[in-house]
Amino acid sequence: MTSPAPPEGTRRRPGGRTARIRSQVLDALLAELGERGYDGLTVDAVAARAGVHRATVYRRWSDVGGLLADALDAAGDDGWQPPDTGSLRGDLAALNHEIQDALTAQPPVVAALIAASFRSEQAEHAQRRLWEDRYARCESIVARAVRRGELPPRTDARRLLLAATAPVYHQLVLLRTPADPDLPDQAARTAVLAASAGAFA
Amino acid sequence: MTSPAPPEGTRRRPGGRTARIRSQVLDALLAELGERGYDGLTVDAVAARAGVHRATVYRRWSDVGGLLADALDAAGDDGWQPPDTGSLRGDLAALNHEIQDALTAQPPVVAALIAASFRSEQAEHAQRRLWEDRYARCESIVARAVRRGELPPRTDARRLLLAATAPVYHQLVLLRTPADPDLPDQAARTAVLAASAGAFA
Repeated sequence: MTSPAPPEGTRRRPGGRTARIRSQVLDALLAELGERGYDGLTVDAVAARAGVHRATVYRRWSDVGGLLADALDAAGDDGWQPPDTGSLRGDLAALNHEIQDALTAQPPVVAALIAASFRSEQAEHAQRRLWEDRYARCESIVARAVRRGELPPRTDARRLLLAATAPVYHQLVLLRTPADPDLPDQAARTAVLAASAGAFA
Repeated sequence: MTSPAPPEGTRRRPGGRTARIRSQVLDALLAELGERGYDGLTVDAVAARAGVHRATVYRRWSDVGGLLADALDAAGDDGWQPPDTGSLRGDLAALNHEIQDALTAQPPVVAALIAASFRSEQAEHAQRRLWEDRYARCESIVARAVRRGELPPRTDARRLLLAATAPVYHQLVLLRTPADPDLPDQAARTAVLAASAGAFA
């Protein structure tokens, strides 16, 4: 749920020349970021990799912060929908597996975008918008569980989603402990048990 | 629990001249970091603020990364113990309030140290050591709850502590939503309800 569209995805985006250039440049940005990290990122290298004139990139995105922010905004336009497995626990577990996979992917594009959000204010704001959008979309997981009678109608969706997903982020991004393959399922199960006990009502 | 000893704390550290210089320099580092953030941090400014010759600082700490790592290591030597309120829920809530207070303090020293851990590999390793140490100490919260009969004997302490504290970190450090004054208590209550339902057994 943190992941920007992968290069394959952005390449399929429709649109004219402007959209094509944006897609080429943002693909190049994510590839450079994954390979070199924030410290190795330059507008010139992104332009060269994209095969786009550097003046075009400077004119449209100004700098690395502008590129990162646009990549995060583009990631929010990808039509992503949360998992729909038929049960609350299944949905939350699948969501957590997506998060864990994105945070441990190689090259580490998502992890590098999160790290970049501590470097660039523009990237920070765009990362916040992306997460807000993703958590808002995930509220459908809770709405479906309410409709199925798995949760009481007045469940606080956002707090439930935070409880279910925060351990995966905390362990991988801040504590930086090795990925625990059981954690996505366990954190989902914990949130469901807490919900059944009335924690988010 | 994330917090390095505040300046007042480090000043009381015992020791001879070497310890006194370390304390002056690390106090100055944290003050500079809180005021200027990582980008404004220089060894020269830290030395000047500490009233210590810059050659001494370069010789002992080499660079900003070395200073940050030592500040984080010093924070781990502070004798901190987790809250002991007489109940699991009380202990976890008090712990979460400590975390939330540290992450929202002004000047933002702890938040700046976490941000710095995405910039400097030395700071990253030291931050990991500090968190590992803090979570290890917090296991006494779970051990006491087991002794009181609040938790089954084979409770996974680390997973319980992760579930209880991760939402506060996630909301403030990554999602960067405004501090929710109810979250520390709610996240503690959620973890206790999940524990009672057997989530960490």
